Amino acid sequence: MSLQPVLIDGAWVAAKSSGSFQALNPATRQPLADSYPVSTWEDVDQALDAAAACADTLRRADGETIGRFLDAFADRIAARKDELVAMANAETGLPVAPRLADVELPRTINQLKLAAAAARSGDWRQATIDSQANIRSGFIGIGPVAVFGPNNFPFAFGSASGGDFAAAIAAGNPVIAKANSSHPGTTRLFAEEALAALEDAGLPTATVQLLYRMSHADGERLAQDPRLGAIGYTGARSAGLVLKTAADAVGKPIYLELSSINPVVLLPGALRERGEELVEEFSGSCLMGAGQFCTNPGLVLLLDDDASREWVSDVALRFDESPRGTLLSTSVQESLAQSVAQLEQAGAQRMTVPNSDEPNRCSYANTLLVVQGTQFLKAAESLQTEAFGNESLVVLCQDVAEIVAVIELLEGNLTGCIYSARDGGDDANYDVVEAVLRTRVGRLLNDKMPTGVAVSPAMNHGGPFPATGHPGFTAVGIPGSIHRFSMLACYDAVRPHRLPAWLTDSQAPASMWRYIDGAWRQG
Amino acid sequence: MSLQPVLIDGAWVAAKSSGSFQALNPATRQPLADSYPVSTWEDVDQALDAAAACADTLRRADGETIGRFLDAFADRIAARKDELVAMANAETGLPVAPRLADVELPRTINQLKLAAAAARSGDWRQATIDSQANIRSGFIGIGPVAVFGPNNFPFAFGSASGGDFAAAIAAGNPVIAKANSSHPGTTRLFAEEALAALEDAGLPTATVQLLYRMSHADGERLAQDPRLGAIGYTGARSAGLVLKTAADAVGKPIYLELSSINPVVLLPGALRERGEELVEEFSGSCLMGAGQFCTNPGLVLLLDDDASREWVSDVALRFDESPRGTLLSTSVQESLAQSVAQLEQAGAQRMTVPNSDEPNRCSYANTLLVVQGTQFLKAAESLQTEAFGNESLVVLCQDVAEIVAVIELLEGNLTGCIYSARDGGDDANYDVVEAVLRTRVGRLLNDKMPTGVAVSPAMNHGGPFPATGHPGFTAVGIPGSIHRFSMLACYDAVRPHRLPAWLTDSQAPASMWRYIDGAWRQG
Repeated sequence: MSLQPVLIDGAWVAAKSSGSFQALNPATRQPLADSYPVSTWEDVDQALDAAAACADTLRRADGETIGRFLDAFADRIAARKDELVAMANAETGLPVAPRLADVELPRTINQLKLAAAAARSGDWRQATIDSQANIRSGFIGIGPVAVFGPNNFPFAFGSASGGDFAAAIAAGNPVIAKANSSHPGTTRLFAEEALAALEDAGLPTATVQLLYRMSHADGERLAQDPRLGAIGYTGARSAGLVLKTAADAVGKPIYLELSSINPVVLLPGALRERGEELVEEFSGSCLMGAGQFCTNPGLVLLLDDDASREWVSDVALRFDESPRGTLLSTSVQESLAQSVAQLEQAGAQRMTVPNSDEPNRCSYANTLLVVQGTQFLKAAESLQTEAFGNESLVVLCQDVAEIVAVIELLEGNLTGCIYSARDGGDDANYDVVEAVLRTRVGRLLNDKMPTGVAVSPAMNHGGPFPATGHPGFTAVGIPGSIHRFSMLACYDAVRPHRLPAWLTDSQAPASMWRYIDGAWRQG
Repeated sequence: MSLQPVLIDGAWVAAKSSGSFQALNPATRQPLADSYPVSTWEDVDQALDAAAACADTLRRADGETIGRFLDAFADRIAARKDELVAMANAETGLPVAPRLADVELPRTINQLKLAAAAARSGDWRQATIDSQANIRSGFIGIGPVAVFGPNNFPFAFGSASGGDFAAAIAAGNPVIAKANSSHPGTTRLFAEEALAALEDAGLPTATVQLLYRMSHADGERLAQDPRLGAIGYTGARSAGLVLKTAADAVGKPIYLELSSINPVVLLPGALRERGEELVEEFSGSCLMGAGQFCTNPGLVLLLDDDASREWVSDVALRFDESPRGTLLSTSVQESLAQSVAQLEQAGAQRMTVPNSDEPNRCSYANTLLVVQGTQFLKAAESLQTEAFGNESLVVLCQDVAEIVAVIELLEGNLTGCIYSARDGGDDANYDVVEAVLRTRVGRLLNDKMPTGVAVSPAMNHGGPFPATGHPGFTAVGIPGSIHRFSMLACYDAVRPHRLPAWLTDSQAPASMWRYIDGAWRQG
């Protein structure tokens, strides 16, 4: 069986491979036709050489050229929409609608267009000028970026199409995309269009390269390579931490999105006021897409009273009655089963019907677990295991102080939600809960589930470790996310004709915001 | 002999110590009178508890209150100037003037005042508002910050007075200062004034705490403690890397300033045009303060021709004729001797008279070394050893391509300088050199030595590893440096009365710059 080629230095070439793999259709459990190579170091080394060779050109490219590429790429994606959706549907089991065709693809195109606009405007550079001292600084591309995409968003977080990709390119960096092994074909289609769009825009064709898989040792070697500027990784915690250790040892910036259980606190007044509504809202958020979101509400904190226990029963019923979604892969199914078992072993009780395997697709029963707050406090580490998928754990607490105690033992999370009574009856408790929750999450929500992640400049899709590797950066939202793939560059007494145009007195883009002598100015 | 007390939770108390140490006057080699404790974990633990207890208050404190503290502290420092200068002079051997009294103390006071103004304005928060989506975000305090100050700036980088201290406080964080062991008395005087200023301003008295020393194991334990938000460390590379490894393992942000040799490229036209002038400029920069600056020009790249060799001889003569400064400590002297020996062993040749020890003070002969570019390329790792002090290594290169090859093997540095002819004759070579130098340094200079680090919003006192731990942050320059000790906090659909004032529609400080719906706006 012939292997799909890899994209290195502008050409689709046969991989120097040490093996091969096929993706599997999780909706049928049947392997898909194409075979993909596991690259050896030789491929990685060539990709690094090609990326390093064009890094300086990319760094100096004007925003207009970068923007032209991103726009052209977005347009090409739109034109190839049907094929992309069909491939991603086959590889991931994610529904065509509502999801791939009508939500994720438009979002992906929008992200690329926003990144194009950001590259053109240059605002992300935060150009800062001290006229009197003649010191000028701002952010510039950090060099080749290796992007490792996750399994759950084949478009919007895809390694050759998604948020990290768009941000790295917008900052003026070449990207070495490492496809997620569960959707290599989707990533291949994107890379094909990216290559064509690079030619359209007149950027170096090594700006986007694609490898499908490499050994873990080669992944670590890549993370430490001096030719690489930074790494973006979204995925499983264990593999991410291996890359982090490798990168940290050589001081290489690595941006990780690892795991998050996204605590939701339902204060008693809110439950009293609109408990039924919250059954729908919570179940919808938890079961949508079979719960395979980084921001899935995996932990619910409630007071242990009759109203709460009734609410939990209602949710369990709703879970049992709802159809179960298709999971992304056999390994997601296995890992979910394993995590649920771990939570049960740590004292959680199942409120929903036990799982029964379906032979012809990847899935797991919608699962609601419950545990007492006192038990959570005893086994906090095990009980905050992320069960990636259609599962959530309810913690019933004796009082608000116990809710606070539980939150104090939580690791960093992407989001935290607090639902409170509209009449202000929960406000005192809100303040107590918010004080401990605020610094443990990147995004705090009121009366809203965390699963919608708007692409907004004000968004923070980030948070303290291990949700991400650094609580100062966001992976979603432009221009914020672009920042991750940049370094601060200062020009001290540099002669005017040698400055980048955006740091000069007269040649910056007209719409660009710059911080000049203590004030933000445009144009 | 009684030990000086430590400052924990607003009170000067006897340390739970495991030992003691005294500082030494490097200008006499005599130990100073006071004895200081080596704290056990019990002290560190109590300081962490006290810091954690007031972290939320600090995070919510308004900019006016933080500013009032920083201003009051600055004023108190000014009032106690003579005592501070005398103590620092005795502990570090740094001259009273020009340096401690007329340069470093005013700079320190200025930094604190700038940090006060930044806290009041709130610009550092980069408040970002998406009105339509009702998503709001900005930077908030990250929690207790442990500051480890270096030996070479007892005021301006002091752990209870300097840039990291001012930045951490301005962001709304408590500080646990770990005094540098070479100037514990100076740090003590600052902490005394800080405590009084906290009382003046009405901030929690645990906002500033002081420990003098702890075991390395306890330092690592501190770095990993969940109560700690972040770490600022400036100092020796070996100790910094130990802390980094500990912090990285738990995903704790750590900002390091470790080592830098600050390459200076003198292109041939510049040498031809103003060689004599450059002898003075370079010698002054390298020998000032006995070369004990992070930005000391420790590596000079020249073409190997007659003009360069003559220039090197002139510099060597100038070094031999110049008085040698007092080094900060016996360990700085030993480390400098060791580094010079290592450079010589790797092939560098001494152009200046060999060192002869002075029995009554810490010092080392002004030292200029020379090596061929070809040799540098063979032993690049050894030959870029930082020799902290009054030393520099000249690399004579066959051509500009060899200069480029040398730069390509350099680790990350804080600064890089290029001198070129005023008539434009070096411009082609400049472009070639700049292309490789730009991403290896945080600050690029033209025709200017790197030792002056202006406190400007446009300054970048940072750079790629191992100059610092992350190339996106600066340790000098306000508001930039404040950023390091903050996290990004997003408020999604949070009810208006629960928002921080600076994220509301109507209650933000009047002068604050905010990014609202795609435009920076003030007021």
